[in-house]
Amino acid sequence: MLSTTERTRLGRARDRAGTDRADLYSILDAGLICHLGVVRPDGAPMVVPTGYGRIDDTLYLHGSTGALSLRAGGEVCVTVTHLDGIVLARSAFHHSMNYRSAMIYGAPRKVTDPEEHLAALRAITEHLAPGQWDVVRTPTRKELAATLVVALPLTESSVKTRTGPPVDDEADYALPLWAGVLPLTTTFGPPIPDPRLTSPTEPPAHITTRARTP
Amino acid sequence: MLSTTERTRLGRARDRAGTDRADLYSILDAGLICHLGVVRPDGAPMVVPTGYGRIDDTLYLHGSTGALSLRAGGEVCVTVTHLDGIVLARSAFHHSMNYRSAMIYGAPRKVTDPEEHLAALRAITEHLAPGQWDVVRTPTRKELAATLVVALPLTESSVKTRTGPPVDDEADYALPLWAGVLPLTTTFGPPIPDPRLTSPTEPPAHITTRARTP
Repeated sequence: MLSTTERTRLGRARDRAGTDRADLYSILDAGLICHLGVVRPDGAPMVVPTGYGRIDDTLYLHGSTGALSLRAGGEVCVTVTHLDGIVLARSAFHHSMNYRSAMIYGAPRKVTDPEEHLAALRAITEHLAPGQWDVVRTPTRKELAATLVVALPLTESSVKTRTGPPVDDEADYALPLWAGVLPLTTTFGPPIPDPRLTSPTEPPAHITTRARTP
Repeated sequence: MLSTTERTRLGRARDRAGTDRADLYSILDAGLICHLGVVRPDGAPMVVPTGYGRIDDTLYLHGSTGALSLRAGGEVCVTVTHLDGIVLARSAFHHSMNYRSAMIYGAPRKVTDPEEHLAALRAITEHLAPGQWDVVRTPTRKELAATLVVALPLTESSVKTRTGPPVDDEADYALPLWAGVLPLTTTFGPPIPDPRLTSPTEPPAHITTRARTP
């Protein structure tokens, strides 16, 4: 069960709240990018898309040591959203979206332990490109020094989803209108080789398999 | 050209900055949801996925009059991101993503003029579901009163994109590894009829056409 705090207790649409930790993991693991929200030194919010990785109950984010979004310190909010469909109702008011989203609040900890730093970078790379870490050149000491990694515990998290057909006002069901859901799917296309590729010219199985399964 | 302010001048990866207003419109118009960042009353950032609409140089967001994300007031950051591909490099360090993203800063204005309020709701609905506004039941006075709309000028905006193959360290090109891009596409599937559908049972052309063209 996800613990509820003042921030993660949903103010609106409580029926869309999920409380199962498995739901949280599933939304995070199926995502490729998150939107990281921080408060800038001038007090304004900033939202940046970025990759991430998960090890158990910790989310890892990385960036250049100069990246404002990770340097800012203090509280952050990380949101991962999957848009699953457009809900076409009989009234404009009840148009909606089917989605799964996860939101995590917390103050990230800078990762300084070399082992955790490397494990986190592996998790982030493997999240984006499963199977690559073990075949590509791993980071040099210089690359590691240039990469800031922060850890965010999944303690304060919430999940929100909407599924299924439109929910119209009872009177509107009599309207002679088509209604339903236009589903959205994200899929991988065939791999595009780097023009500077020499050998091998065919991508390995861990890439081609993924291209067939979204 | 997009004007540059201290916030929209990219600190990192300046070569990924776009300055053309057409790029901004194109990224916004091709998106379905944005991630809205606000600062909560307790000072922490909050990032929520939400729909939007655009009329000329104004972005409109809507929500329940009780929604904390729109009630908060003050500065916001709206980010729209399209993930176009996973960049598979020869080193872990140079793994990346191809994407197009737009970021808008500003303090939204609450829309109070009834004509602008309706025009904004139309733009938001038509953005999500083009062609629907003219066929579905339009909002009642009560529904309009329950819907808060805010306007955000596109004055302070930035665009960031990455395209093309991986950029590896020169020495790594000699490694016997496949490298390239795994493209990502989002497509609409066949419309799923509402189980309570009576007549018509076939979706209209403005929906079926969309289902064929992502």
